Amino acid sequence: MSVSLSAKHTEAFIAPHELEGMTAQLSAAAELVQTKSGLGNDFLGWVDLPVDYDKDEVCRIKAAAERIRKNCDIFICIGIGGSYLGARAVIELLKGPMHNTTGSTTPQIYFAGNNIDSEYLTNLLAICEGKDITVNVISKSGTTTEPAIAFRVFSELVRNKYGAEGAKDHIFVTTDRQKGTLKALADKEGYETFVVPDDIGGRFSVLTAVGLLPIAVAGIDLDGLFAGAQAARKELSLPGNDCYRYAALRNILYRKGKSIELLASFSTAFGQFSEWWKQLYGESEGKDGKGLFPASVTYSTDLHSLGQFVQQGSRNLFETMLWIEKPVADLTIGIDPENTDGLNFLAGKQVSEVNLAAFRGTVLAHNEGGVPCILLSIPAVNEYEVGYLIYFFEKACAVSGYMLGVNPFDQPGVEAYKKNMFALLGKPGFEDRQQELLAKLD
Amino acid sequence: MSVSLSAKHTEAFIAPHELEGMTAQLSAAAELVQTKSGLGNDFLGWVDLPVDYDKDEVCRIKAAAERIRKNCDIFICIGIGGSYLGARAVIELLKGPMHNTTGSTTPQIYFAGNNIDSEYLTNLLAICEGKDITVNVISKSGTTTEPAIAFRVFSELVRNKYGAEGAKDHIFVTTDRQKGTLKALADKEGYETFVVPDDIGGRFSVLTAVGLLPIAVAGIDLDGLFAGAQAARKELSLPGNDCYRYAALRNILYRKGKSIELLASFSTAFGQFSEWWKQLYGESEGKDGKGLFPASVTYSTDLHSLGQFVQQGSRNLFETMLWIEKPVADLTIGIDPENTDGLNFLAGKQVSEVNLAAFRGTVLAHNEGGVPCILLSIPAVNEYEVGYLIYFFEKACAVSGYMLGVNPFDQPGVEAYKKNMFALLGKPGFEDRQQELLAKLD
Repeated sequence: MSVSLSAKHTEAFIAPHELEGMTAQLSAAAELVQTKSGLGNDFLGWVDLPVDYDKDEVCRIKAAAERIRKNCDIFICIGIGGSYLGARAVIELLKGPMHNTTGSTTPQIYFAGNNIDSEYLTNLLAICEGKDITVNVISKSGTTTEPAIAFRVFSELVRNKYGAEGAKDHIFVTTDRQKGTLKALADKEGYETFVVPDDIGGRFSVLTAVGLLPIAVAGIDLDGLFAGAQAARKELSLPGNDCYRYAALRNILYRKGKSIELLASFSTAFGQFSEWWKQLYGESEGKDGKGLFPASVTYSTDLHSLGQFVQQGSRNLFETMLWIEKPVADLTIGIDPENTDGLNFLAGKQVSEVNLAAFRGTVLAHNEGGVPCILLSIPAVNEYEVGYLIYFFEKACAVSGYMLGVNPFDQPGVEAYKKNMFALLGKPGFEDRQQELLAKLD
Repeated sequence: MSVSLSAKHTEAFIAPHELEGMTAQLSAAAELVQTKSGLGNDFLGWVDLPVDYDKDEVCRIKAAAERIRKNCDIFICIGIGGSYLGARAVIELLKGPMHNTTGSTTPQIYFAGNNIDSEYLTNLLAICEGKDITVNVISKSGTTTEPAIAFRVFSELVRNKYGAEGAKDHIFVTTDRQKGTLKALADKEGYETFVVPDDIGGRFSVLTAVGLLPIAVAGIDLDGLFAGAQAARKELSLPGNDCYRYAALRNILYRKGKSIELLASFSTAFGQFSEWWKQLYGESEGKDGKGLFPASVTYSTDLHSLGQFVQQGSRNLFETMLWIEKPVADLTIGIDPENTDGLNFLAGKQVSEVNLAAFRGTVLAHNEGGVPCILLSIPAVNEYEVGYLIYFFEKACAVSGYMLGVNPFDQPGVEAYKKNMFALLGKPGFEDRQQELLAKLD
């Protein structure tokens, strides 16, 4: 298998019979996913997506991406939550977090509509000045506040620059297949549309048009992603596979009192992938008063920040460490004739060898400090492995959520702040609530 | 006061007598800081730093920054942990997270030596190609692995480009006043040096040369930072001040079973400041099996990621929300004659008004969901307010740590991974441990 799990560094905390004690419920949870018979089973479209995806649409996505790469300097991807986290994760992992400054031949890619930050919007508009831009708005309903505000701003920019006719080459809409205001607008204006499927929630949507168009614009090979996801779909339904073991281990640790899962990688390019993972697990399991709090760190960077807490602070966390076996690039450490820094014992070694020693050394140190460490490793960073890893985490999340006893596919709590915000802004229909809320504020 | 705290949205969780019950120990903890008589009191140099700082050195920093701004396109700041987090936090908060791409007249600023990531280093070297670069290496000992590796790479680049003589204008060293290999090297090669004080730990060092040189290179006014910190130093030693209240509230919530403090801001520019805060609190309090786990989010972005967990998941967290009253920039929301997105009730409003409603709506929603919210607000983002905020968090952290009963100024756990890493890399003197560690690995 591409993703491989080692439980060796949980053994001081979990006895073999504990895993055995989870077998029955693990099978039951996996069965709920396979037979699509559990809570939220209307949202299991991602399970067979790697083989069932709309081939014609993916062809259209590739063609659109090809045109976009030629027609703009800057590609603005408008969406919030699951409508941007997957694309951003894949692009930064495969092209590096500095992809906009390392002289790529593909357009610069910026994400907008995921905040209500006037400074951010203003800066982004400044960056776009004098540049050719193309916009992809991604929203199932078309009425979510954050992306809608950004789309008002950037669609106006596009129409002013290219006119109503020219805008057809510079605005792409990913939304509901039939319903919704954004679909209606796109049809009327002649913007090409792509589909947010009904049976796949935002946080599971990276391999739909939601993620695929921005990913393709970045020059990433979609077939490679699907090939990895296909292999994962096949291998990760076998009994005892590593994705099931991951689901079981984290549920055991949760029930033993661990309240935080810290996803640790040793690669800065993995930072945004961790953000995608945080939404996936936090939103799927954080409900009904339950769930592990998902947090992430990049080591060795954060060994000099949260490392002290992990080593010796409250013993309420475990780590899931993601190790990439083959580095994307490497450098040889040179010799310093004067050995000023005392590091000549590293001369001739690759930087990646030092990183490997940091990884291993950290596992052992944190283990000794009382932190269980689940190790996940992937052979390399390429489309195939990333597609596999996405599916691994999605499947494990669904199974883990069922073991926890929740509906892993809804997110009812996300509405609460929106309703309050609408009331406070005087949205028609929310007037009664406005007075009530104002009374509660300072 | 510049930073102002509201405890209103903790009142459903903390009765008035509970705060009263903390008064004595709060005074005792504050006294330990003021009289420099508690654990770790060798590291209290930051308390009077706003007035006691070395004026001559700050003049030299300003002069060096002026020369650096003229002599390079790219400024590489090499340091890990407290040697880069403060500078990065202040620069991104005051100049925006996209400061390198928004056409600033000051050099682009990149941070290196805070990881062992060969891909990151390779990318950064590619960005530097054909550019004028200046390097600031920041390390007390000069032998910390991560910055030392990066300094080998970038100092070689500088020497190859400018020669031994020219390098004197392109390498600046922030290190121990007298001791250490880096100081010796700088003196020998003629590099200008600045001081990492003996009595101020890394995470409290942003207003020393450690933070000030990069901050000054970014064109930020150091006197403004000091003015804010001076006001804070004066005001935040008065009884019952908001920094003491913050320390007391978080200790109460910790003892009531909350294990996570989530610092939430509504500004993308605040993201790196949160990282600085995480080191400050995590490293100061995460020891002896104790401490709140410090996590951070940027809203409304992460309301569509971790928001579900915060609203309805495990009730083991509280939030500290940071609100900036006056936005750095603003935009008016336009009218859409067709009101496609249904947002015309927002037309004519400023984006910042919507953000304010999101902030208030979120506080009320999370409160209703069982999450205590401590509100901190600052009037605006400028040098004065940022200087004040830095001191606010530092002082609160020290007092809070003493209330928790730990030494807030050491970080003994950070050594553990280093020792293992050295052993695994075959560093002379660590041979015995190497075999022992290898046996524990897979």
